[in-house]
Amino acid sequence: MNKIRAVVFDAYGTLFDVYAVTARAEQLFPGKGEALALLWRERQIDYTRLRSLAAPDGARYKPFWDITIDALRYAADRLGLKLDDATEAQMLKEYACLSGFPENLGALKRLRRAGLPLGILSNGNPQMLDIAVKSAGMHGLFDHVLSVDAVRQYKTAPAAYALGPRAFELPAAEILFVSSNCWDACGATWYGYTTFWINRAGHPAERLDVAPTGTGHDMNDLLDFVTAAGVAV
Amino acid sequence: MNKIRAVVFDAYGTLFDVYAVTARAEQLFPGKGEALALLWRERQIDYTRLRSLAAPDGARYKPFWDITIDALRYAADRLGLKLDDATEAQMLKEYACLSGFPENLGALKRLRRAGLPLGILSNGNPQMLDIAVKSAGMHGLFDHVLSVDAVRQYKTAPAAYALGPRAFELPAAEILFVSSNCWDACGATWYGYTTFWINRAGHPAERLDVAPTGTGHDMNDLLDFVTAAGVAV
Repeated sequence: MNKIRAVVFDAYGTLFDVYAVTARAEQLFPGKGEALALLWRERQIDYTRLRSLAAPDGARYKPFWDITIDALRYAADRLGLKLDDATEAQMLKEYACLSGFPENLGALKRLRRAGLPLGILSNGNPQMLDIAVKSAGMHGLFDHVLSVDAVRQYKTAPAAYALGPRAFELPAAEILFVSSNCWDACGATWYGYTTFWINRAGHPAERLDVAPTGTGHDMNDLLDFVTAAGVAV
Repeated sequence: MNKIRAVVFDAYGTLFDVYAVTARAEQLFPGKGEALALLWRERQIDYTRLRSLAAPDGARYKPFWDITIDALRYAADRLGLKLDDATEAQMLKEYACLSGFPENLGALKRLRRAGLPLGILSNGNPQMLDIAVKSAGMHGLFDHVLSVDAVRQYKTAPAAYALGPRAFELPAAEILFVSSNCWDACGATWYGYTTFWINRAGHPAERLDVAPTGTGHDMNDLLDFVTAAGVAV
């Protein structure tokens, strides 16, 4: 395996718990919260891919926050839930200020102490990422907070993954890309990164004829992987 | 509206009823059939988009039949269902030989009698489409059966939608593109086609800042749309 010289994280679902919105959704729409949160997330990702695939030049690009609103409105319509302005604002506020997973902050600090530059490479637009990083108490931990907004192409477009090597001035293979979304870890592997899939839910791997370099259950397993790769953390 | 000079159909879900596999799935996995069919379909579409978005040059392309098998295996794994070779073969056979929706054959014949050249433009690879067209009794109705396999890019990539105007030697705006998948009708609208969304399930429109030219519930509504557009059928 290549020497790891930097670690780059996906944001939503990896650093920040996107399904934390489920509790709020359940409170607002008893019995429908989980379905709403799942469909919201599904459409959010669908819309990023449809727009980027339809226009490699970025002509259909729309910032992730706006897509997040579109997806929420679709999901509510589809499930027959009335989403008035106040309710929508509550749901969006929940999404804007997500919590980190419990072990994340400690793990990030250990990686930094080991001398590894850290980054985020996310579909989220810069304003969203800025708020989310602060909400999760992760301010100051990242050398680069990279948004695909700079290239107007969502993951798994190569232009999106290219942001990491460019910012860190390292070959992709020397950057460890970490995501809890298997498809994202696979996309990064295709691009050339060394990768780690945080499989929190214990799902099977996506069948895409490519495997993340490493897999574990949470961020503590990532620390073990980094140590095994020769960087004591 | 532009004069309509040809009609091109999406295949799976539009001409052929993909959820017809649900009954077989339910028979094989009582109580889990619907979940299996839905997750299978979801992953099938996800994998097409992930592969095309990751490699605009087609380097990650894999034929739709093979992706269909990958998606079925993933869905079964994810739901904890044991898919032995015989069961898998039964599910795949069901998918290979889908039925058409009841009104489709009559509607296609009326469009042809009105002098409109007809086509299919599908993610499916040529062998799949050939078998499906024959199974549904639609052999001989189409002037062009177009597969994205020719360009190794799945919808909503512009290269995929470009197959229609090229084959029919018509501007996209003079071709009516018909799909029961709202995202596909939207993608074709972005590309420049005149479009019709067959909204069989009564779902809300996808929030993609674009609307199909027309919408209806089934293929009979399509005939009304074509008549209103100036072609008596």
